[in-house]
Amino acid sequence: MSRPSYENFVAERESILAEEAKRYLGSDLELSPKEKVVNEILKREKNLELVKGFADPGSFAPAKHFFDALDDVKASKVFKILRKMPKFGVLHCHDTALLSTDKIVAFTYRANLWICGDLFTSVPRFLFSREKPADGSWVKVADEREKFGATRYDAAMRSLFTLYAPDAVQKYRDINAMWSKFMELFAALDPIVGYVEIWKDYYYETLKEFYEDGVQYLEFRGLLPELYDLDGNKYEALDIAGMYVEVLEKFKAENPGFVGSKFIYAPLRFADNAVFERYLQTYRALKAKFPDFIAGFDLVGQEDTAFPLKGFADHWLKDGHGIPCIFHAGETNWNGMDTDENLVDAILLGTKRIGHGFAAVKHPRVLEELKKRDICVEVNPVSNQVLKLVDDYRNHPAAILFSDNYPVVVSSDDPSFWEATPLSHDFYMAFVGIASKHADLKFLKKLAMNSIKYSSLSDTEQKEGTKKWQEAWDKFLDDVIEADKKGL
Amino acid sequence: MSRPSYENFVAERESILAEEAKRYLGSDLELSPKEKVVNEILKREKNLELVKGFADPGSFAPAKHFFDALDDVKASKVFKILRKMPKFGVLHCHDTALLSTDKIVAFTYRANLWICGDLFTSVPRFLFSREKPADGSWVKVADEREKFGATRYDAAMRSLFTLYAPDAVQKYRDINAMWSKFMELFAALDPIVGYVEIWKDYYYETLKEFYEDGVQYLEFRGLLPELYDLDGNKYEALDIAGMYVEVLEKFKAENPGFVGSKFIYAPLRFADNAVFERYLQTYRALKAKFPDFIAGFDLVGQEDTAFPLKGFADHWLKDGHGIPCIFHAGETNWNGMDTDENLVDAILLGTKRIGHGFAAVKHPRVLEELKKRDICVEVNPVSNQVLKLVDDYRNHPAAILFSDNYPVVVSSDDPSFWEATPLSHDFYMAFVGIASKHADLKFLKKLAMNSIKYSSLSDTEQKEGTKKWQEAWDKFLDDVIEADKKGL
Repeated sequence: MSRPSYENFVAERESILAEEAKRYLGSDLELSPKEKVVNEILKREKNLELVKGFADPGSFAPAKHFFDALDDVKASKVFKILRKMPKFGVLHCHDTALLSTDKIVAFTYRANLWICGDLFTSVPRFLFSREKPADGSWVKVADEREKFGATRYDAAMRSLFTLYAPDAVQKYRDINAMWSKFMELFAALDPIVGYVEIWKDYYYETLKEFYEDGVQYLEFRGLLPELYDLDGNKYEALDIAGMYVEVLEKFKAENPGFVGSKFIYAPLRFADNAVFERYLQTYRALKAKFPDFIAGFDLVGQEDTAFPLKGFADHWLKDGHGIPCIFHAGETNWNGMDTDENLVDAILLGTKRIGHGFAAVKHPRVLEELKKRDICVEVNPVSNQVLKLVDDYRNHPAAILFSDNYPVVVSSDDPSFWEATPLSHDFYMAFVGIASKHADLKFLKKLAMNSIKYSSLSDTEQKEGTKKWQEAWDKFLDDVIEADKKGL
Repeated sequence: MSRPSYENFVAERESILAEEAKRYLGSDLELSPKEKVVNEILKREKNLELVKGFADPGSFAPAKHFFDALDDVKASKVFKILRKMPKFGVLHCHDTALLSTDKIVAFTYRANLWICGDLFTSVPRFLFSREKPADGSWVKVADEREKFGATRYDAAMRSLFTLYAPDAVQKYRDINAMWSKFMELFAALDPIVGYVEIWKDYYYETLKEFYEDGVQYLEFRGLLPELYDLDGNKYEALDIAGMYVEVLEKFKAENPGFVGSKFIYAPLRFADNAVFERYLQTYRALKAKFPDFIAGFDLVGQEDTAFPLKGFADHWLKDGHGIPCIFHAGETNWNGMDTDENLVDAILLGTKRIGHGFAAVKHPRVLEELKKRDICVEVNPVSNQVLKLVDDYRNHPAAILFSDNYPVVVSSDDPSFWEATPLSHDFYMAFVGIASKHADLKFLKKLAMNSIKYSSLSDTEQKEGTKKWQEAWDKFLDDVIEADKKGL
């Protein structure tokens, strides 16, 4: 039992901690003198929050449920800095779960919207139509709003389109209960955003909100559900993708600092062979027509409930040649089940990134393959908490991925449904709640840079994207230094 | 982007999962034919519980708070098997937090016990004394019990000595609130168990309960607080250790299948240099007098609140020569703070095992050193949940330690305070809640064997211990096979 001298202890201690610091996500970056100034401001503010949280853990925002932490986060100076920060890309989120709830409520002010069912006590159906729809007892939303008063009516509308509830922790007993409400929400929303005029505006407003939140690139998953208009026309996958591209071009022309957006076709995983075959055909048609916009393929829906990836493996490996895949896998806290073993399948099926990968840390061979194959994990902190995988951000497994420089990005999944900003709240939880106290601007810059590197942007696009991000980054540094003089 | 054929996919998938299985804790063991029979029974019952839990996660005991899961666990057939299983050693638990609450309440029936303060609305003080104590308004417990009726009085007494509360999740806001109640509980209990006659009986009854729960060896931490008797005598460290040894010898003589018990002297970490010096002197005196009973040194008390190990390093490395240490470290979900960096200190200060090590998985160099130096982590699942480190056992970091064969034991910390059996509840949560679905009898057998290997038993004692454990294990196998015929 030989022990070091105190001097050697101090030296070995410093050496081990320094080695860990060197392995931490972002530690390979060198900060410029100006970045170092901003880093000192950032570290000062982060440290204040940690000291306060350490003394009174119950008041620490990342130890609370997200819905109870919203006001704390809003008041945080670290959050203010993160809002301004050019974070570059959101690489994991879903088509109709992007826009802020207020904008959704505003859409319900559009003419010709009908409602069937009681907004106050049930989940009603909606439809845009010139005439009163035939089946069921439909009334005009405008009339109802008049009748109940806009304040009361809009509050009910608002609560329909968010998972937010002050008593959410008690209200949703488990992941299945939460997913059931989550699916209900998507279903109620579909006929509103599925109205073709709104669909386009939804995407335009989304790009706007994301860009305002420091997001210059949006790589999102979608189902391309059938859309409709007032004249009885139906719009299918190719039409919808065309609309996205049209809106995107408009937005890019208006916002030269914005880099772009790409689409991962991600229909429901609850599919048999015939349906899966149609998915692949749709993908090929989309890719042929919009080669720059279409980025890859995925499947969506609660992973635990059924249809593991291995069931699609045969079909995929025979018919999926040349289709890039970016699979959800391991969005679960079960261990040794099909859901977490999806991680192995996703890797072997050639996934470029992994959506969530919450269970990856329990699989040593998966961890090794992530590094060996340079597969990036799309971490969605707030989603994982709201959808009942983890209670306290400090226990989020991404802490382990950060600690040893795994390829990761931080993303937001469905920010619309939990009152989150497009990306800043997830960055906040990752930075203050999940990462080490020692994580600083290098960590955040690395997350931004990873979202360039692991995006589906081509090499040329990545170069252009990096240039635009660097411009925004330089401006951000000046802004923070300036704002700090006035007390942030 | 070359992808495997489906046949190669299937082969690679099996190979990766097989490699993970080979790295899992216990996978190096070979089961005998009889063990294989028991394993099939065990796997069958575990699988039934997992299938049920997977379908309805809110009903899954390891997804609930321990206090809400007690009835589920009691009804579990896996738990019934675990109760019978010879688990060999408890290597992490604390002197006055071992015995079941019913036995504590029974102690309050002893003659000459006085109470000061209202049992129903406050935390009262207790004292054994022939005469009425001078300070304050003391009354006899026997008279009070008579007055209020034993049922009501004992219920209040019971709730004083347990953290159990049906609303515990809401009641205790954070780890600090829980620890404050926890410390209050120790303080209320001290003058009861500190009465010299009860102290000895407490230890005797503890050995009995542990042995009945399949524990043949108890390596526990204690403060050796001053004891008293009715004649005004005080008993100090050496006297108390002598009592332990006396009781232990008696118990061993009566129970030849029991292996033994050793003691880790673990006074409070809230200590300055002078106090620490006294700790080391006390340790040396104890070790000189009871060389076989005294196993090592540690410090106790909530780690987050202050006094990190590095503060004792200089003193320890100069004056601690030859003293084995078994330090608490990293019992926290903070990251990058003194508390989790205690892990680095514990390792460099020469710790034989690590108490809790909850934060170890966030420290890649710590993980490497654990393997390199063969330092065993003492995992205490139920304690970590009740004391507010983790909510859902499926997110317990030990899942990662199990997945890659780190040196670990499962222990129970303070089973007295949360209505747990001496070790079986912790084994249940580790086996059903934390470990992979694939973990089976090999995993459990390995935990038992690790508790021999990483104990402070000498080589000779380990040999004798292994023999006694093997006898109990063989009997257990027959018992399970027999019981299964009658439906467990």
